[in-house]
Amino acid sequence: MKIVIAPDSFKGSLSAAQVCAAVEAGARRAVPGAELVSVPMADGGEGTLDCFVAARGGDLVEVAATDPVGRPVKAPYALSGDGRSAVVELAAASGLPLVEDVPPDPLGAGTSGTGELIADAVRRGARDVLVCIGGSASTDGGAGLLRALGVRFLDASGAALPPGGAALARLDAIDDSGVPDAVRAARFRVACDVTNPLVGPDGAAAVFGPQKGADPAQVRELDAALTRFADVLADRFGVRVHDLPGAGAAGGTCGGLVAVLGAEPSGGAQLVAEAVGLREALDGADLVITGEGRVDGQSAAGKVVSAVAALARDRAIPVVALAGGVVGPLDELHGLGLTAAFSIADGPRTLDALKAEAAPLLAGLAEQAVRLAATR
Amino acid sequence: MKIVIAPDSFKGSLSAAQVCAAVEAGARRAVPGAELVSVPMADGGEGTLDCFVAARGGDLVEVAATDPVGRPVKAPYALSGDGRSAVVELAAASGLPLVEDVPPDPLGAGTSGTGELIADAVRRGARDVLVCIGGSASTDGGAGLLRALGVRFLDASGAALPPGGAALARLDAIDDSGVPDAVRAARFRVACDVTNPLVGPDGAAAVFGPQKGADPAQVRELDAALTRFADVLADRFGVRVHDLPGAGAAGGTCGGLVAVLGAEPSGGAQLVAEAVGLREALDGADLVITGEGRVDGQSAAGKVVSAVAALARDRAIPVVALAGGVVGPLDELHGLGLTAAFSIADGPRTLDALKAEAAPLLAGLAEQAVRLAATR
Repeated sequence: MKIVIAPDSFKGSLSAAQVCAAVEAGARRAVPGAELVSVPMADGGEGTLDCFVAARGGDLVEVAATDPVGRPVKAPYALSGDGRSAVVELAAASGLPLVEDVPPDPLGAGTSGTGELIADAVRRGARDVLVCIGGSASTDGGAGLLRALGVRFLDASGAALPPGGAALARLDAIDDSGVPDAVRAARFRVACDVTNPLVGPDGAAAVFGPQKGADPAQVRELDAALTRFADVLADRFGVRVHDLPGAGAAGGTCGGLVAVLGAEPSGGAQLVAEAVGLREALDGADLVITGEGRVDGQSAAGKVVSAVAALARDRAIPVVALAGGVVGPLDELHGLGLTAAFSIADGPRTLDALKAEAAPLLAGLAEQAVRLAATR
Repeated sequence: MKIVIAPDSFKGSLSAAQVCAAVEAGARRAVPGAELVSVPMADGGEGTLDCFVAARGGDLVEVAATDPVGRPVKAPYALSGDGRSAVVELAAASGLPLVEDVPPDPLGAGTSGTGELIADAVRRGARDVLVCIGGSASTDGGAGLLRALGVRFLDASGAALPPGGAALARLDAIDDSGVPDAVRAARFRVACDVTNPLVGPDGAAAVFGPQKGADPAQVRELDAALTRFADVLADRFGVRVHDLPGAGAAGGTCGGLVAVLGAEPSGGAQLVAEAVGLREALDGADLVITGEGRVDGQSAAGKVVSAVAALARDRAIPVVALAGGVVGPLDELHGLGLTAAFSIADGPRTLDALKAEAAPLLAGLAEQAVRLAATR
């Protein structure tokens, strides 16, 4: 019996690797001779770099970069053991938490730090770069990121625009002649779990601007600037991202990456699954165990459990999700391929008690689930 | 797919029949075409009469009987549809709760009411009588019960002894010539889940006497009386019940039934399983779902889950227990044949919240368990 264990972390209690260890312990008690293959997973957010490093035998690389308001910041990204693949989290150098100590600067904040991490990865040989976006402090359409990769954003006088989203209102031309060949040759994928377009009432400025400190007038200003940005991108690269679902992610960063670098946006968990080699791990598996802190049937899209279930369904492998909490109805998840979901709760328990006992409870539950699955 | 549903009640929230209904709902969602066979179970205690009536198409029969201290009481027993089998609960006419309104009478309390129910059942044609004992108010070795069936307990002068355990100290002879042939022809089984002998430091008086109001001197008096009782039983019937495991159940009632009527003691859940026809229901089953309010791996003996697991194991059918709470380790239950156990808890919940939502939570859990079992 081959069992693949591919869970997300249980946020607030167990890392994905710890979840794997607990499930392994229970599965081993259930079927001592089983072949257990652990593939810790993530959804493009917290824990993604660790999963990638664990799966691909790589290392974290720490880079001196620029934070959203132009200050120096040390930020890590993950490079695979063979140096060919990298995972960059936008939040590492361009996240909102990095600027909580200064007054918000919704008009001027940028994403250059993330571009500096990508540039470093490409310089070291990465040709496949997964950019996990979300949680940005900026609404610059990814202009800062692209600038760090050699793209120049110019006004009508031919002068370079300053950082930040507001300046894009004066964008007249884009010069990408300075982009290194290595960057042009690289494949970029963008992990993005929102469907907002770049502009308009559901766009980056309108929906995410306020949480970055933009008042209504600034939201209007940023939306107009992003519209100008998208117009010029369409003229220059022939790609319209104004209304592209997901283009509005991370202050429009997704839109910029798609238009300029041909980046492919997709769900975070799905891209992480590819990056850590889950598809290959499933070869010959009889059972897949996934899980996360909370399986919610009504917000299943983009989660690890959904992505794992979809991959397993394609191969007709049963998939069981083990979770701190299970919130039904689960019909949609069953439709995606999830066989069954169980909570680690063994009776009445407080949240704190569940968290404190998460590892042994999970091991016990995994034992039960594997015993039942193994009857076939 | 044939699924047999054979749970105990979830005490304090769902009857066994309600548990069956919830599991059926979930199982039907999981495998719409499945053949579902519900056999509500009990362990010889609360709910046993209802299960028997449901399974055997019978009725409850209410009888005017005598309570432990000689007062009239109306008490029910269960008679099968064909009138050949009956289930009598000792607690119905001879239980401790019936005399909570009067001062305890540990020396004088008796079991005659239970004998009156049995006599009624035999009069109506019952030839197979399951007597579920436990919870008695008396320590009379079942003398009152036997007296109601025609047995006479005599002192040295040939006079009939008065009711109660203490009087057995003066027992000199037993006259069973007045026992009707129908009683002699009947098969008696005793559902009993303790292993205490009739007499001695682990016997009926020493262990259960105090909770019936006996002080230390009365415990010694009752133990001596039961010893005398057992001596005479051994002389008269050739059966020594002094040290028989279980003979001490219900103030020694089990001992008296074994010696005088050749009753066969066994675990309550096991006898109920036989009485409701669970063995036959398992024919051709692919999965058995059992359950109870709380599955405790360390006090598994005599419980419904253990009895159902043992029957299913004999036929290599997977058995899943669904419960309000699951308390490990479950190794012993797994050894008995239980495939897996899951709690209905879907995350952090208070006991009250679990009870209030027990039915829908149970349906949801059953759906998940059946989905997983059905992958084979």
